[in-house]
Amino acid sequence: MTGTDKSLKPADADAPDIILIEPQMGENIGACARAMLNCGMAKLVIVNPRDGWPNAAADAMSSGALERMPPVRVCQSAAEAIAPYHYIYATTARPRDMVKPVLTARGAAADIHKRHTAHSKTAILFGPERSGLSNDDVALAHAVITIPLNPGFSSLNLAQCVLLVAYEWYQALEAQQAIPAAQLPTGDSAPATHGEYLGLMRRLEDELAQNGFFRSPDMKPSILRNLKNMMARAEMTDQEIRTFHGIISALTGKKTP
Amino acid sequence: MTGTDKSLKPADADAPDIILIEPQMGENIGACARAMLNCGMAKLVIVNPRDGWPNAAADAMSSGALERMPPVRVCQSAAEAIAPYHYIYATTARPRDMVKPVLTARGAAADIHKRHTAHSKTAILFGPERSGLSNDDVALAHAVITIPLNPGFSSLNLAQCVLLVAYEWYQALEAQQAIPAAQLPTGDSAPATHGEYLGLMRRLEDELAQNGFFRSPDMKPSILRNLKNMMARAEMTDQEIRTFHGIISALTGKKTP
Repeated sequence: MTGTDKSLKPADADAPDIILIEPQMGENIGACARAMLNCGMAKLVIVNPRDGWPNAAADAMSSGALERMPPVRVCQSAAEAIAPYHYIYATTARPRDMVKPVLTARGAAADIHKRHTAHSKTAILFGPERSGLSNDDVALAHAVITIPLNPGFSSLNLAQCVLLVAYEWYQALEAQQAIPAAQLPTGDSAPATHGEYLGLMRRLEDELAQNGFFRSPDMKPSILRNLKNMMARAEMTDQEIRTFHGIISALTGKKTP
Repeated sequence: MTGTDKSLKPADADAPDIILIEPQMGENIGACARAMLNCGMAKLVIVNPRDGWPNAAADAMSSGALERMPPVRVCQSAAEAIAPYHYIYATTARPRDMVKPVLTARGAAADIHKRHTAHSKTAILFGPERSGLSNDDVALAHAVITIPLNPGFSSLNLAQCVLLVAYEWYQALEAQQAIPAAQLPTGDSAPATHGEYLGLMRRLEDELAQNGFFRSPDMKPSILRNLKNMMARAEMTDQEIRTFHGIISALTGKKTP
């Protein structure tokens, strides 16, 4: 069966993609796929799965979900995984010290329905089973999702975390199907993809490094994270990315690559 | 650690109890306990667990939840399990042909917060992994909970079902903690417990049987289920139960036992 299987309708076209960063157990990947399809999500991306891909344990635990979904996209890095999307959510169990919007799973569901359109794709990042997302991965995202749970016992397994986020999205979908779709604001420029945004960030980082901006090597990672957080909050358009490249070119006297 | 552990506060006193009917795998019971405590629920009741109790696999899968919760109550029958409660919810994946309110998990969460008070305890029934609740078990409940999911792929495992129901309850708790508690209506009589209600039902069944009410043995189970559904919807008070006993006594010429 394929992604056009009717078991995926009507949800899949509007659903955010789910990105698992370095998942360890195939069983957990399979359970995540099952939870996704339970909630009408079908597009799964995996970054560096420990035991490779495909994975028989994942197939078994998915209860048939993986065979009904489009093929899983397997990537070598988080940056490669998120390149196609316009807006990225990072799931974290604990607050991180970053200036970035923090949403509940329910708040994120409403936000995703607003942002995910034919011209603006969203994705949700989930970290490895034991450690969760690294600060560097969280910095790649525009917003953080934290699920409100018993503060004395809040540790969820990976598939349950995927289930709750996907469930909230599906409930919001069910609710909005009763009302007409909102009008899309259509300007002359489109939201930037994450690939465009990362290209700009990489160029900026290179230029800054060449110009001695990072005085201490120790400070460089956190300075870059803060920059990324700030730029992510700006939600730039493709035109603004081009403008920013032009600014760098002007300041450095080098052409936009 | 005990039920007074601060990891259970503030939720446990107001939480519905979770009743698992004939669960098979210890791992699933442990995963249910973990999901419960994630959402501030601590009281677990198990009816006829296949592999007995306690169960090492359940302890391992609970990630420490079972040791923080009050001891599990183990019962021999669904009727014994539900006897202490005033209002019972049954979870089902598919609609049953019964005249009984059907709630979403979110709708049930709001309903539980309204009904579960110091004087009115609620519980939620979950069926065995493969088959779900029997029609007889569903008939014991006042209302049915069905979780809205992708209709083409809606099969959840037991712990995920518990998680979603408990999660919705916890979200509603978080929401209501911002507002003052509703005033309780305090009449002269209290809601009937399920034990009182079952006592009445058993007596009624005996009397009906003795009086030749069940003409065909084949029809008896479904007639009784319909009766139970009807009486459950009535949400009787303890005074009304006594009144009903009085009616049976009057009609049969026998004293109330």
